[in-house]
Amino acid sequence: MIQYSTLDAAILNALAEDKPTLDVTSDSLFGDDHHSRAKLIAKAPSVLSGLEVFRRVFELISDQVDVEASKSDGEEVALGEIIAVLTGPTKALLFGERTALNFLQRMSGIATETHRYVEAVKDLPAKIVDTRKTAPGLRLFDKMAVRHGGAFNHRFNLSDGVLIKDNHIAAAGGISAAIRKVKQEIPHTIRIEVEVESLDGLLEAIAAGADIVMLDNMSLAQMKEAVQVNCGRVLLEASGNMNLETVRLVAETGVDLISVGKLTHSVTAMDISLRFE
Amino acid sequence: MIQYSTLDAAILNALAEDKPTLDVTSDSLFGDDHHSRAKLIAKAPSVLSGLEVFRRVFELISDQVDVEASKSDGEEVALGEIIAVLTGPTKALLFGERTALNFLQRMSGIATETHRYVEAVKDLPAKIVDTRKTAPGLRLFDKMAVRHGGAFNHRFNLSDGVLIKDNHIAAAGGISAAIRKVKQEIPHTIRIEVEVESLDGLLEAIAAGADIVMLDNMSLAQMKEAVQVNCGRVLLEASGNMNLETVRLVAETGVDLISVGKLTHSVTAMDISLRFE
Amino acid sequence: MIQYSTLDAAILNALAEDKPTLDVTSDSLFGDDHHSRAKLIAKAPSVLSGLEVFRRVFELISDQVDVEASKSDGEEVALGEIIAVLTGPTKALLFGERTALNFLQRMSGIATETHRYVEAVKDLPAKIVDTRKTAPGLRLFDKMAVRHGGAFNHRFNLSDGVLIKDNHIAAAGGISAAIRKVKQEIPHTIRIEVEVESLDGLLEAIAAGADIVMLDNMSLAQMKEAVQVNCGRVLLEASGNMNLETVRLVAETGVDLISVGKLTHSVTAMDISLRFE
Amino acid sequence: MIQYSTLDAAILNALAEDKPTLDVTSDSLFGDDHHSRAKLIAKAPSVLSGLEVFRRVFELISDQVDVEASKSDGEEVALGEIIAVLTGPTKALLFGERTALNFLQRMSGIATETHRYVEAVKDLPAKIVDTRKTAPGLRLFDKMAVRHGGAFNHRFNLSDGVLIKDNHIAAAGGISAAIRKVKQEIPHTIRIEVEVESLDGLLEAIAAGADIVMLDNMSLAQMKEAVQVNCGRVLLEASGNMNLETVRLVAETGVDLISVGKLTHSVTAMDISLRFE
Amino acid sequence: MIQYSTLDAAILNALAEDKPTLDVTSDSLFGDDHHSRAKLIAKAPSVLSGLEVFRRVFELISDQVDVEASKSDGEEVALGEIIAVLTGPTKALLFGERTALNFLQRMSGIATETHRYVEAVKDLPAKIVDTRKTAPGLRLFDKMAVRHGGAFNHRFNLSDGVLIKDNHIAAAGGISAAIRKVKQEIPHTIRIEVEVESLDGLLEAIAAGADIVMLDNMSLAQMKEAVQVNCGRVLLEASGNMNLETVRLVAETGVDLISVGKLTHSVTAMDISLRFE
Amino acid sequence: MIQYSTLDAAILNALAEDKPTLDVTSDSLFGDDHHSRAKLIAKAPSVLSGLEVFRRVFELISDQVDVEASKSDGEEVALGEIIAVLTGPTKALLFGERTALNFLQRMSGIATETHRYVEAVKDLPAKIVDTRKTAPGLRLFDKMAVRHGGAFNHRFNLSDGVLIKDNHIAAAGGISAAIRKVKQEIPHTIRIEVEVESLDGLLEAIAAGADIVMLDNMSLAQMKEAVQVNCGRVLLEASGNMNLETVRLVAETGVDLISVGKLTHSVTAMDISLRFE
Repeated sequence: MIQYSTLDAAILNALAEDKPTLDVTSDSLFGDDHHSRAKLIAKAPSVLSGLEVFRRVFELISDQVDVEASKSDGEEVALGEIIAVLTGPTKALLFGERTALNFLQRMSGIATETHRYVEAVKDLPAKIVDTRKTAPGLRLFDKMAVRHGGAFNHRFNLSDGVLIKDNHIAAAGGISAAIRKVKQEIPHTIRIEVEVESLDGLLEAIAAGADIVMLDNMSLAQMKEAVQVNCGRVLLEASGNMNLETVRLVAETGVDLISVGKLTHSVTAMDISLRFE
Repeated sequence: MIQYSTLDAAILNALAEDKPTLDVTSDSLFGDDHHSRAKLIAKAPSVLSGLEVFRRVFELISDQVDVEASKSDGEEVALGEIIAVLTGPTKALLFGERTALNFLQRMSGIATETHRYVEAVKDLPAKIVDTRKTAPGLRLFDKMAVRHGGAFNHRFNLSDGVLIKDNHIAAAGGISAAIRKVKQEIPHTIRIEVEVESLDGLLEAIAAGADIVMLDNMSLAQMKEAVQVNCGRVLLEASGNMNLETVRLVAETGVDLISVGKLTHSVTAMDISLRFE
Repeated sequence: MIQYSTLDAAILNALAEDKPTLDVTSDSLFGDDHHSRAKLIAKAPSVLSGLEVFRRVFELISDQVDVEASKSDGEEVALGEIIAVLTGPTKALLFGERTALNFLQRMSGIATETHRYVEAVKDLPAKIVDTRKTAPGLRLFDKMAVRHGGAFNHRFNLSDGVLIKDNHIAAAGGISAAIRKVKQEIPHTIRIEVEVESLDGLLEAIAAGADIVMLDNMSLAQMKEAVQVNCGRVLLEASGNMNLETVRLVAETGVDLISVGKLTHSVTAMDISLRFE
Repeated sequence: MIQYSTLDAAILNALAEDKPTLDVTSDSLFGDDHHSRAKLIAKAPSVLSGLEVFRRVFELISDQVDVEASKSDGEEVALGEIIAVLTGPTKALLFGERTALNFLQRMSGIATETHRYVEAVKDLPAKIVDTRKTAPGLRLFDKMAVRHGGAFNHRFNLSDGVLIKDNHIAAAGGISAAIRKVKQEIPHTIRIEVEVESLDGLLEAIAAGADIVMLDNMSLAQMKEAVQVNCGRVLLEASGNMNLETVRLVAETGVDLISVGKLTHSVTAMDISLRFE
Repeated sequence: MIQYSTLDAAILNALAEDKPTLDVTSDSLFGDDHHSRAKLIAKAPSVLSGLEVFRRVFELISDQVDVEASKSDGEEVALGEIIAVLTGPTKALLFGERTALNFLQRMSGIATETHRYVEAVKDLPAKIVDTRKTAPGLRLFDKMAVRHGGAFNHRFNLSDGVLIKDNHIAAAGGISAAIRKVKQEIPHTIRIEVEVESLDGLLEAIAAGADIVMLDNMSLAQMKEAVQVNCGRVLLEASGNMNLETVRLVAETGVDLISVGKLTHSVTAMDISLRFE
Repeated sequence: MIQYSTLDAAILNALAEDKPTLDVTSDSLFGDDHHSRAKLIAKAPSVLSGLEVFRRVFELISDQVDVEASKSDGEEVALGEIIAVLTGPTKALLFGERTALNFLQRMSGIATETHRYVEAVKDLPAKIVDTRKTAPGLRLFDKMAVRHGGAFNHRFNLSDGVLIKDNHIAAAGGISAAIRKVKQEIPHTIRIEVEVESLDGLLEAIAAGADIVMLDNMSLAQMKEAVQVNCGRVLLEASGNMNLETVRLVAETGVDLISVGKLTHSVTAMDISLRFE
């Protein structure tokens, strides 16, 4: 039972995008009776993500395609490993091939890179989290891939989490005023996160009742001090141009969360291919 | 007059994805009357793409947002350069910000990297072309960005171009048979491209009436020979794991087209930010 | 600038529902040039809600309808008071009339009844909150109306708040286990609410790190004890068959929140009519 | 075979509304393999309506949920009676629970109240009918519930029935003129109903060829006279602020139809709950 | 104010069908600034229909296109007559051209042929009506065109009119039984039409309370007798393979309505072209 | 495996169009258990097209309808021949009947007439092709029917083929300029077709690199000369008001393609009916 509905709409949309009228190649070459068998093969070591989406692409095309998987989302696959074997009508396989791979390669690329960040800090308490810097229309897929890579999701959208940034603060007349205002309005089920650029900001945010404070582009020294000053009262999230080298240093400051935009805004597709027999 | 309809659906979809119910932060802080001004700034040198999409995001949100642009899609921008100035209701600006940037940063990332490939071969006749390895649902955006980067589009989808690959060939009983079969079926307005792995394949494809032949993962030496043997009869397209180092060597073989999957399947988002005043 | 997109889809859907083909009455009687003027009149004292939706209905039908409002959502209106004056093409006014009123009357009904609950506890700290027991497809409208009535929103949906109920607890092997499991998975921006039926449950939930505890169908005495025991550590939400008589007694126990399902599941439409001149 | 298509769109819309991304509670707690069993129980005596919709909600979520019903729409259920037993994946059951109940409780609420009106006049020829005062987007559901309660449907929308009201009459230059005009235009399959406020109006409407006349807010005495004057020539429909006390008196005047807006505009949800084992 | 919403969906659908990605011709040739002027010219005498739809196509593409019409739907145009003059961005004009003409030519074809039937019987009381034999998805357009041609609409769909046919009758156990059953169920605003094949059937239908009787494939003699026997009690509709020669003979039998399927199922497009200057 | 997705959307749209709420006739007469059997019968000799669409209509309505076909799309059927036998729930059969027939009769009408054109030139090399003059929203259906009739498809839409017409030429400054401009922009997979009105135009188009030249409204003599002059360098397409008498004369000039707008813009529905037992 794959995630309902939102995924389907995006998949159907992608399929329609790839075949507005006919598949002029395959529809010319194959009848409905022509069947094929194909192997899905990892061409590089990776953390797998998107296999359930891959499977769903073919389910939506035809109930005659069978996807026999030997791996699951979140698992590692080695170079050359066979991830799945597909059998079914040749036209259905060729129609879904590119769309299914486009999902799978992007998601596995995200999961694999995410996994590197997670490994880099695995003996430290800091959690790696994602952002809203995702491919438009693919938020849910991108965030599922982050989970398959071992990291955690930040808020999914503007509706399920409060994040008060500089511009909110400026317009509302300061950190305390902004927090108080938001607190009066939102459902009690949602936490309030505030972005600060200094220790003073941090202290004001804590005093005003913030639940989470984002330390925006702070130095390592500032972050360390923030952790001491905070003393566990709020969750501290480090943010701003993380990479695989800096992430461990940041984690060592003792922050609770490290958000990494590039997990989803700059993705290297994993090399995975479908080989027909 | 921006590209009609397909773009709008994807943009509206992205906006709905980012705000399923309310913007719990901004809707709590700002009334309808609160207005802001913000600058769109390049944080790295880049080839701009997606500015018209960026503008359209805000047009679809509110007719009260004004986007005063000083640059156009396809132009280069320097680090620190102001691309546009936005004014309008604060809630509208903050609602559209992330979605508009997600489009703009991805498209400018594609255009900028594409431009590097184009520059690498600019004194040679070979054209750089894209592939169908795009983010699902964003095909048109990705391909527009390739154009802004100075390269050319390959077919957009399975419906507007024939590409006969190994598996098609195997199933149809050989190159000649496949070409003949397809030729009988398709509209006369569409060209036939065939993927071959050897010079024999190339010759058979030419004899059978192919219009374009894709040389799949051939060595430089093979490609050179293919160019000589072909003698201008068909368009020759080099394909397979191109990068910025190899692309010039490939172009020097004399092929007509070089397709580069990573232009769109592995995108580094361009650093562009919206700064409120 | 009314709430973007989700509202429009529901409004357009309602309009299509009310006119699948033609308006056989008005399309037969009036030409495009026939204009009318109509007054929107409160036939009972009420708290107004849905006026912006009412206006939007007509905006979506025609840019020639003018809705001159003398009241705003959230304001009280007296019997006989004129809420707005409409002018525009007669066919447009008659087409939108029923749909616009159906929204307005339901939303004002919700706001008016909500206001009674809010008034009943206004000198006490307890907040009145709504539930997910809304008319299918109208969640956002129903919850906006609750806000116009002076109360607060609980979570909007299954995605933006955790609520662990008995069945979750049973299946997960107890309160502590369930909370720990959920905590590991969800975005850090979302609070965890747990439903308990006893003081032991409350204590276990607090110990395991719950943020909010729902006291399900407890007696007034139990609630008072829960408040004492809790000592401000978590938010306490009273739940279960509230009505206008019991709500004050419940608030006096010192709970933080009182959720009232009937605010939205059992709505008495406010009597408001559109009178043509 | 449940009513095709329109129902599905509304149900899918309601499901998407309740889970825009993930079910953060259940998706954290349960794997795909976790199954549950739950009983659907009437917490108050009622006339059942919406059970087929309830079933359809789960069909649209997963083909693994089984809904074993012991009752049917239109039947009465006693307090404590088990309406159905559900088995299936726990995540599917918890996802659909609230949406399915929201439909079922509203529809059963409508059917139960409708049944009271029907019972009140059951030995008289007058039929109880509904109106277009329904929850936006739920017209078909609301009208199905009215049928399950034993009453009848008035027109479904502006397209399938003519109803000429005061404003139509004023604009068209009188009752006769309006009827004549409409008659020339509409399909011959549709009847013409006219709203009148006096006996003169009734007589003019009959003379001009109305098929049905709505007696708007007339006194009981006026209605009796209208019935005598009409002498069976047209159907007479009493309209205006009916309640359970007045409806019998109105029926005793001899009118053919009594339309009751509150059957659908002011609904008390029936208390029905889903209890997991 | 053109018919709301249903038309737009069909028009947008047609536009998307004609340009899934880019207009590879015009988008290559023209910039956004290039403007043109074009004349819409009748290449054959016709009754015009679809001009408002034609205008709407361009409104939906761009607010910069101006359609200056010198004719209206329902009017006759002579060979060579200029129907409208268009000015606007060249790309917008060329994008909309084919779609707009496809609507206009079909609708004018329907109106023109319909007008011939109407003229053939114009001194007789029989009305020409259409059927549900329309192009799928274009019902409303086809029926508007019938009206522009001077004829009348039969029911629009299965929801707004009852038509009991042989198979209904057989399954329900006879004409009387079927009519009685339907009468108990349907809204009182809808008339009941029954298809009969003999005078006995007609008499039974009248006795059972039919409002309209369709005489299916009866001879002229039978129809005449049916008219006499009926004596004005129900509306009589002649049906079955009408053409321009037989329609007058049928009308002379005295039937009230003559339904002509081919008005919409077999349409000759009117020759109208758009000539750029 | 019928053509995916685009067909379904159009079919569902047509079904919704035909039943916005209930089927007031059949829903009143039949329970879910009532089953029927019906025969699909050709009432005129024809080339069958749309049978797979016909089948799909019922698949989308209910999985309980069985369509046992004895014919396939593209085959000829004789008068009186039984094309298929349907069994299933009576309500499902009656709901789908009209929509399924509307598709089938239009498509078979197109296929049958197309077949006459194909037969008229069958011993000559010229191919009959269609145009974009199709019923809005039914392009794919219309073009499938043309294929079932034995002819070929021209481009499907503005995106998958270039056609440079007079107005393009005028605006671009001549044939050569237009061709060069387009060539620089479009994917290399798409051919360029140019419309010319003279032999000079033909020669200029060939010289500038056109792939296909449309001879617009030329005389037979001009076409013959064009064929000689061309000498096989480009494909020549004759266009303009073809009919069954002229098409052979045109084919005899030696042109490669003859496009016939009326195949799809002026369709005579094939007489096919569904007879219940």
